[in-house]
Amino acid sequence: MAIGRRPGISRTREELLTAARRRFADLGYDKTTVRAVAADAGVDPGIVTHFFGTKDAMFRAAMDWPFDPDDFVRAIVGPGRRGMGERLARTFLELWQGAESQPRLLAIFRSASTHEESAALVKEFVHDQLYGRLAEALGGADAELRVDLALSQLLGLAMLRHVLQVEPIASAPVEQVVARIAPTLDGYLRTPRR
Amino acid sequence: MAIGRRPGISRTREELLTAARRRFADLGYDKTTVRAVAADAGVDPGIVTHFFGTKDAMFRAAMDWPFDPDDFVRAIVGPGRRGMGERLARTFLELWQGAESQPRLLAIFRSASTHEESAALVKEFVHDQLYGRLAEALGGADAELRVDLALSQLLGLAMLRHVLQVEPIASAPVEQVVARIAPTLDGYLRTPRR
Repeated sequence: MAIGRRPGISRTREELLTAARRRFADLGYDKTTVRAVAADAGVDPGIVTHFFGTKDAMFRAAMDWPFDPDDFVRAIVGPGRRGMGERLARTFLELWQGAESQPRLLAIFRSASTHEESAALVKEFVHDQLYGRLAEALGGADAELRVDLALSQLLGLAMLRHVLQVEPIASAPVEQVVARIAPTLDGYLRTPRR
Repeated sequence: MAIGRRPGISRTREELLTAARRRFADLGYDKTTVRAVAADAGVDPGIVTHFFGTKDAMFRAAMDWPFDPDDFVRAIVGPGRRGMGERLARTFLELWQGAESQPRLLAIFRSASTHEESAALVKEFVHDQLYGRLAEALGGADAELRVDLALSQLLGLAMLRHVLQVEPIASAPVEQVVARIAPTLDGYLRTPRR
């Protein structure tokens, strides 16, 4: 049964996404609730849960966000400290190369670079869904600063390779770039010795 | 004598800048000539030289580019290899903190993130005026890739600190950030041993 094709259902889903985008844009990530989005679209909160599961998943659907932060964090920190920089570099670069994920990441990047509301929204989501978990897994007093440093290396790389398309790094094979930046990421993520 | 205040002269300068912006936008950096810009504004090429000196300086005036690439490269590579990462990090971060230079860098960053023509123009200028000289000073077969890697770290940092303003790195003192990223930059810039 092709449930997604029934016009009534896909219209409800679109109405929920429109209501979610408006709420997120107006209130930010933290203050937006599933209940309020449901009320805006004139449906029961259970319908939102039925379509999207959690607020986090509703946000990703509304923003066309191309990965699940849970899966991402698990893939990076799950196997332990050894090789973490390499896994982080490879996972990030592969998302930016992916035929499905690349245009979505580019759209989010461009919008966050130019619109303060988009930047604030993306920051809040990334902070709640990615930072906390990464920093907790790392431990240490300045864990969030260390995550920032690693993220700065990754974001700059995405900008040069995929937004500005600067050569020779834009055409360098993923594995060559992973080999160069993994030690940088490990250096930032390592818990400082006391 | 307040020469810049004579209305005829400042009008000529504005007309030249308008003509320069149009030429640069249409043809890019390399193919734009001082002669063509002068012709567009209906003046002798000597007038362009009088106002701006070189094509590079005319470009900086047209783009409101906040530093002289010559001075920048000299400050980084002049004193030699030792401490190069630290000088590069500090010079770059101070430009991004400067009351005059910060808004101009933000405008260039945003425009290059969203408009392909701006991105192409900035790339060409940076490549001609900064990359070549830095890569030459570094030496080694993959010098341009190493400059790209260093630039990716710096650009990502500018994005997190000044565009997205992500904490805690946005409020970290320049010297703390310099201490963390200087070893990364030195690692990238170092000539690989054979």
